[in-house]
Amino acid sequence: MSTTPAISRYPVPALADLPEDLRERILAVQEKTGFVPNVFLTLAHRPDELRAFLAYHDALLLKEGGLSKGEREMIIVATSNANGCLYCVVSHGAILRIYEKKPLLADQIAVNHRKADVTPRQRAMLDFAMKVCLRSQEIDESDYAALHAHGFTDEDIWDIGAITAFFGLSNRMANMIGMRPNDEFFLMGRVPRAKA
Amino acid sequence: MSTTPAISRYPVPALADLPEDLRERILAVQEKTGFVPNVFLTLAHRPDELRAFLAYHDALLLKEGGLSKGEREMIIVATSNANGCLYCVVSHGAILRIYEKKPLLADQIAVNHRKADVTPRQRAMLDFAMKVCLRSQEIDESDYAALHAHGFTDEDIWDIGAITAFFGLSNRMANMIGMRPNDEFFLMGRVPRAKA
Amino acid sequence: MSTTPAISRYPVPALADLPEDLRERILAVQEKTGFVPNVFLTLAHRPDELRAFLAYHDALLLKEGGLSKGEREMIIVATSNANGCLYCVVSHGAILRIYEKKPLLADQIAVNHRKADVTPRQRAMLDFAMKVCLRSQEIDESDYAALHAHGFTDEDIWDIGAITAFFGLSNRMANMIGMRPNDEFFLMGRVPRAKA
Amino acid sequence: MSTTPAISRYPVPALADLPEDLRERILAVQEKTGFVPNVFLTLAHRPDELRAFLAYHDALLLKEGGLSKGEREMIIVATSNANGCLYCVVSHGAILRIYEKKPLLADQIAVNHRKADVTPRQRAMLDFAMKVCLRSQEIDESDYAALHAHGFTDEDIWDIGAITAFFGLSNRMANMIGMRPNDEFFLMGRVPRAKA
Amino acid sequence: MSTTPAISRYPVPALADLPEDLRERILAVQEKTGFVPNVFLTLAHRPDELRAFLAYHDALLLKEGGLSKGEREMIIVATSNANGCLYCVVSHGAILRIYEKKPLLADQIAVNHRKADVTPRQRAMLDFAMKVCLRSQEIDESDYAALHAHGFTDEDIWDIGAITAFFGLSNRMANMIGMRPNDEFFLMGRVPRAKA
Amino acid sequence: MSTTPAISRYPVPALADLPEDLRERILAVQEKTGFVPNVFLTLAHRPDELRAFLAYHDALLLKEGGLSKGEREMIIVATSNANGCLYCVVSHGAILRIYEKKPLLADQIAVNHRKADVTPRQRAMLDFAMKVCLRSQEIDESDYAALHAHGFTDEDIWDIGAITAFFGLSNRMANMIGMRPNDEFFLMGRVPRAKA
Repeated sequence: MSTTPAISRYPVPALADLPEDLRERILAVQEKTGFVPNVFLTLAHRPDELRAFLAYHDALLLKEGGLSKGEREMIIVATSNANGCLYCVVSHGAILRIYEKKPLLADQIAVNHRKADVTPRQRAMLDFAMKVCLRSQEIDESDYAALHAHGFTDEDIWDIGAITAFFGLSNRMANMIGMRPNDEFFLMGRVPRAKA
Repeated sequence: MSTTPAISRYPVPALADLPEDLRERILAVQEKTGFVPNVFLTLAHRPDELRAFLAYHDALLLKEGGLSKGEREMIIVATSNANGCLYCVVSHGAILRIYEKKPLLADQIAVNHRKADVTPRQRAMLDFAMKVCLRSQEIDESDYAALHAHGFTDEDIWDIGAITAFFGLSNRMANMIGMRPNDEFFLMGRVPRAKA
Repeated sequence: MSTTPAISRYPVPALADLPEDLRERILAVQEKTGFVPNVFLTLAHRPDELRAFLAYHDALLLKEGGLSKGEREMIIVATSNANGCLYCVVSHGAILRIYEKKPLLADQIAVNHRKADVTPRQRAMLDFAMKVCLRSQEIDESDYAALHAHGFTDEDIWDIGAITAFFGLSNRMANMIGMRPNDEFFLMGRVPRAKA
Repeated sequence: MSTTPAISRYPVPALADLPEDLRERILAVQEKTGFVPNVFLTLAHRPDELRAFLAYHDALLLKEGGLSKGEREMIIVATSNANGCLYCVVSHGAILRIYEKKPLLADQIAVNHRKADVTPRQRAMLDFAMKVCLRSQEIDESDYAALHAHGFTDEDIWDIGAITAFFGLSNRMANMIGMRPNDEFFLMGRVPRAKA
Repeated sequence: MSTTPAISRYPVPALADLPEDLRERILAVQEKTGFVPNVFLTLAHRPDELRAFLAYHDALLLKEGGLSKGEREMIIVATSNANGCLYCVVSHGAILRIYEKKPLLADQIAVNHRKADVTPRQRAMLDFAMKVCLRSQEIDESDYAALHAHGFTDEDIWDIGAITAFFGLSNRMANMIGMRPNDEFFLMGRVPRAKA
Repeated sequence: MSTTPAISRYPVPALADLPEDLRERILAVQEKTGFVPNVFLTLAHRPDELRAFLAYHDALLLKEGGLSKGEREMIIVATSNANGCLYCVVSHGAILRIYEKKPLLADQIAVNHRKADVTPRQRAMLDFAMKVCLRSQEIDESDYAALHAHGFTDEDIWDIGAITAFFGLSNRMANMIGMRPNDEFFLMGRVPRAKA
């Protein structure tokens, strides 16, 4: 633990050794964020899988839709703690704080979304996400009805469930390879003057 | 239930309305298999997500590696039953029967992999897959050691875990949208003379 | 696994060595079905227990009542998968397909009864069976009320619960002794022209 | 609760209305024990099922074997509390106290068999019974090996598992019908001078 | 087991070696009850912790309030069995029998409070206690509403939850140190003429 | 949520209305920490219970012993997240960061102690704490042996278990009353220059 802890139990490729498209994507992230989130480098051990991972991620998180960017991060943070995934709770907690400009929200949602400063609509969203995360086989029309009552459309519900499902994959990968969150994430969005 | 049951609770696009690349991919599958597996049509409601889904699927299931094609399907069948996913148990059960030319194996593995006609190495593989599926947060080096003892390499272990993780996503999507397996899958690979 | 796999981890008696009454019963089944289901031979290791087992089985499954023969098999298939019992899922899945003349139904119910082609009344029946199977200590009058609302009588409810309870016994025995389903069961009732 | 509480939520037949064989059996029990345990009267609502129940019970509990009569009752008491079955914990707790002449043992085993005054061999027996009760699908040869190490034979292990399985049935029936233990059971075997 | 079983896996101080205040408290209990409950002697291994324990106990169980003394003991007995705590089920079961003058009630509540001779109000109280015991993170206003409907005030609800929480601590300590209930507790309150 | 969110669903007394001893204690904390942690004010709704709570807390956390102050906080953070207790994860996470001077450690331990930057000895300590938290009824001598192998004494083990048990109480109280962590805790110990 003294020197630099490994960010994965698998080999981590050097940026210079990556295929051009992945290197460019990663450099663009680095320029915007100031560092390279470890998810890129650790999953780059398998470039084809990383490409698919990023395409899926973008299809769910960059699209337009009825869920705000912050709400999508809420889903990730709540379900990732249920799956015991350190990387996703910490990194998406940081993004959630920045999007919502609420420095306390990520920790609240991670530990117990029922006690978090969220609206009743968001509470219903997170209850459904937790069901997709933990007991998806029990989902039926009554779950849809509960969300419709809060104004969610069927497309919104697909978004909630698909984000949960995608991070179900991500959480399991991170747990399996011991993906370590960058130190930078822990503090991001916590101090008012901090820049995202 | 009388006429034709829905294959998804979401709208299912007509093949003709799909983007060119997806239509071609689907037609190719249809030509090879004789029908279009419902996963293609039901997930095509969101073309970008389907593209990413297929890219991830191919990266894990078409690649070379230490796991045979049949073993990869074993992982899918065992973990999909643990997640209560009808579509994946039935469709990948069919593929498993065909790959392994063992008409009983898929049902054995779905209900209880510990009682299935598999080798001790495959039993260890499936035990690990079930842990990734159900308790990935508890994975540590002792799990790697147990698999190494059966001759699995670290890359094989990544394969086992990544396939499990990817179908964790797939299972949750199928459960959420009520994806219905094609009738054809139920019988495929069960009768000696049946062609895949 | 190459030659003939054991059908039990306990000694299996030869038909000729069985007491007269059990041998006659078994021969009658063989004549009707075309083979001897392994449950008879494996449990015949303990003749007194087998006699009681068969008497209980007959009292529940051969009696008149508000549940159709197919519905009784639905209960067995759903709860046996919850208990991870390969023998009962496969053998009673075969019987269910034959009774209901629906080749897909058994697999649907085994993996996830909520996604199966059953009526709302049957869904309620299976929900109750799963509660008796997994959390019988929580049953109270509200469970009876839910079933009454679907037209079930108290006697029907006894049938649902008693069949579930009896196969709770059967599942545990089969899991303990490694009871192997006959190969014949896997295909029965799947092909339209197949005769039971 | 003031007058006489029901002993079942189903009709309870009068002794006089029972078939001859069951009435005689029940009268014999009454003569020996001093009262009619409610299990007889409540299950007599279905005479055929009661006959099979008693035959099974006798085949497991009256037979010779490597388990003492007290040890068989230990299995029942431990697993019945795990299933939340009031009737079986109380009635078989009474029988256990009488057989073992240890007034504290039944309560110890019901709440936590790991803290009970039992031998290491009995602790292993109860650990296995709890696995058959709660996770029978996970049983494999390693469980047999653990019991062999304590001197149990395969036949003893069948006894342990079969008793657990049979009371798994019994517990579910009792929970479903609200079977009430006779008041007499609560005190039996607790006071040194008390006669069984 | 033959001679005197240990009452704790930790050293148990002699009464004479205890600080004055604890010795006096314990002697007072002994005078009233006729023996020293083992909880006093076993926890006296850490006098400061025992003092705090007793102060907490008294604050919850000796105070005035909407819950009767018997109802407080019901909570302890039900939740202690859920936690597998032998000491608390047995010792507080004894106290419950004495307070309520119902020799059957403690065993009923320990095994399955849903089948016990309690009022609907007490059933709701115990349902809430079990939720605080097993899933406190899920408590929200709907739980309060359910209890208000039975006439419980917010202060009563604090009492229910706080007693459950305190015995959650007590149960874990007793399980960890192997605290053994005094033999006397097992019979107390069971025989009409028995004096508490 | 807009103005000032409640820190408890119960009335919160004014400092001025508190008994002298509690007011002094709280003022001392305020002077040292710079604010009054909400646990003091919210539990002060019941002064006798708060006094016992503080006495217990001090007996466990201020005493000498083999566990460092930071290790005691690790136990609290890990088990409080398992119990879904927002107040304790956030407030003790702050204290842990300060004691250990490791700004990342609390979040690591809360989400998944197996992935945290702790020593093997601390990992064993936290594994045991999680068992006391979640399955204390299963503790036996093998758990003690595992901790002895890491150099823990029996007294250290009592400390681990007692801290876990005490916060099991605290977590349930906080969940029940909706105890809200002070905003200050979220940032404490995260920024190098930040003063505790």
